[in-house]
Amino acid sequence: MFTIEPLAREFSEQIQAKIDQKTKPLGALGALESTALQLANIESEIAGQWQSISVNAPQMLVFAGDHGIAAKGVSIAPSEVTHQMVMNFLAGGAAINCFCRQFYIDMQVIDCGIKLPIPSDIARQHQNFIEQRLGTGTVDFSEQAAMSVEQVKKGIELGAKLAEKAAKSGKNLLMFGEMGIANTSSASALVCALLGLTAEQAVGLGTGITNEQLQLKVSLVKQAVSRKSIIENNLTSEIDILTLMAELAGFEIVQMTGAMLGGAQAKLPMLIDGFIVSVAALLATKIAPNSRDYMIFAHKSHEQAHQKILEGLEATPLLDLSLRLGEGTGAALAYPLLQATTAFYNDMASFESAGVTV
Amino acid sequence: MFTIEPLAREFSEQIQAKIDQKTKPLGALGALESTALQLANIESEIAGQWQSISVNAPQMLVFAGDHGIAAKGVSIAPSEVTHQMVMNFLAGGAAINCFCRQFYIDMQVIDCGIKLPIPSDIARQHQNFIEQRLGTGTVDFSEQAAMSVEQVKKGIELGAKLAEKAAKSGKNLLMFGEMGIANTSSASALVCALLGLTAEQAVGLGTGITNEQLQLKVSLVKQAVSRKSIIENNLTSEIDILTLMAELAGFEIVQMTGAMLGGAQAKLPMLIDGFIVSVAALLATKIAPNSRDYMIFAHKSHEQAHQKILEGLEATPLLDLSLRLGEGTGAALAYPLLQATTAFYNDMASFESAGVTV
Repeated sequence: MFTIEPLAREFSEQIQAKIDQKTKPLGALGALESTALQLANIESEIAGQWQSISVNAPQMLVFAGDHGIAAKGVSIAPSEVTHQMVMNFLAGGAAINCFCRQFYIDMQVIDCGIKLPIPSDIARQHQNFIEQRLGTGTVDFSEQAAMSVEQVKKGIELGAKLAEKAAKSGKNLLMFGEMGIANTSSASALVCALLGLTAEQAVGLGTGITNEQLQLKVSLVKQAVSRKSIIENNLTSEIDILTLMAELAGFEIVQMTGAMLGGAQAKLPMLIDGFIVSVAALLATKIAPNSRDYMIFAHKSHEQAHQKILEGLEATPLLDLSLRLGEGTGAALAYPLLQATTAFYNDMASFESAGVTV
Repeated sequence: MFTIEPLAREFSEQIQAKIDQKTKPLGALGALESTALQLANIESEIAGQWQSISVNAPQMLVFAGDHGIAAKGVSIAPSEVTHQMVMNFLAGGAAINCFCRQFYIDMQVIDCGIKLPIPSDIARQHQNFIEQRLGTGTVDFSEQAAMSVEQVKKGIELGAKLAEKAAKSGKNLLMFGEMGIANTSSASALVCALLGLTAEQAVGLGTGITNEQLQLKVSLVKQAVSRKSIIENNLTSEIDILTLMAELAGFEIVQMTGAMLGGAQAKLPMLIDGFIVSVAALLATKIAPNSRDYMIFAHKSHEQAHQKILEGLEATPLLDLSLRLGEGTGAALAYPLLQATTAFYNDMASFESAGVTV
């Protein structure tokens, strides 16, 4: 489905030497140094050179979708809020809008299948709004498959096209956000199945539910992952991941996974933030393991299962700000650190050029 | 010496209500929310209003000084490197230059008393270079007092004037950086005396010394803080802190402490980064406890004593990127998070304005 090659890393030694010759003690820029190495390796693949790197044209893709399970009351808000928040994104009033404006990040909002669509006159007014609906919210995954495998395939394809389009228009960094009431339930169920966690280990407080809601969420996730169709799915080949996604995912998660696969295929660096986005990243790496090479992790979520995902992906996020908002806010907030990474890598003096004693 | 009032906080409830009415779950922006509360409280003192906040005119002050103890070989580099790095700052080649350029932070470099001064023709060419030398490096503090109390007073005064000047020129955020070979030794000794730590607890690897150097550093710090003049100093009144600074501090630490006191007096928010800068912050709060109200903490250093300082100041830094460079790099990297804080606080929609169901 995708041709994703491992990052070549043929210039790794030269890149590391360049970093080590900067006027600073060895390793003194910490996480920025490993990020520089990864970005320069990616750049060497895209541009055929590693001497300078750039993330000056970032694209934020915010995927929205509704979840049938929301009707069970597993979230702090009803499904209507997904629509309301998409309207808020279009009006520029959400946290992610503020951060994207602040850091000059181009932001697109994708309706992947929210329950109540955006009125067409409003949709038309917003160039940054993309409608590629897979349905009118998913089926309640605690009772049966959330969607069909055909919908999963279609969603991955649509998501990938967004990444391809971004690459073609000169974008050099992808970021992902999501909005979908109850999507932490879906993400938790996926983590259970993918990492073999129990529902208790995989379910968290989301954006701040009560203890009763937490118990309900745990029992519904447990019910879902106990289905014969899921237990019998041994998760070894690509088709099984797609079946699993059909069972448990949401439309926004499916399209986000596609966008990551498309981004990795286009060799774009990708900034991955909190819990939901990381589940999509995990799905992408299950479909195409090499896609991991293009991912940089932005924010450590307090959702307990996020830590497990990060361990599985051997990822250390740049930030830990106790965010629990989604929308891609963790990625947007980490973006300036990537700008700083390119700044030191490209422009900082070497011991030799600055006449500093080694 | 300084008139530093506690932050009034009379609008705290209104400010918190404004934050809580933003279109996000309660507390979902984590560390940015507590930062917004602090900034808005400060703004209410400066501008008499709390409805909008700004950090759009930041000033980075990088203080340089040399330390007599460097001759004992406690650092990875000799004192000459302090001069070389100041030259690098002026040429724009250091990490802090790259970050300040990237984030449009105005940067000044202050020679507080490096061993080899900057040649006067070069000094004249750089408007952002300020010479206010307290001497030609400090005396080796492991053997006797690093400087006189008169030098400490002079340094505090000179540092404070920089902050006052920044405030008068419309700057609305102060950041601090430092350069001085062996200044972690001085900072460790100060922490021993201020927090009652042993030399073993207070001394760390600095920018990456060998184990032999570490042992030497520990024994020299131990020797210094065992001096009768220090043991008899009971640290209860302002004059004793000045004596302690004379015994153990460096010229850059003294001036930085003064700049923080001046900044707090001018009611400027101040972004405090790693180990050395935090020791200056600790000194400032010992001289004027209310100065703490204006401090925001940028980066958690891996120097073990830094954690103790943060605990003492009840501070949770925004970043933990494994930096160990100094120069103010942690503050510069945290600056975009303050920009994002002002962006969400000023511009994010409320539930009411966005028509989102609470």
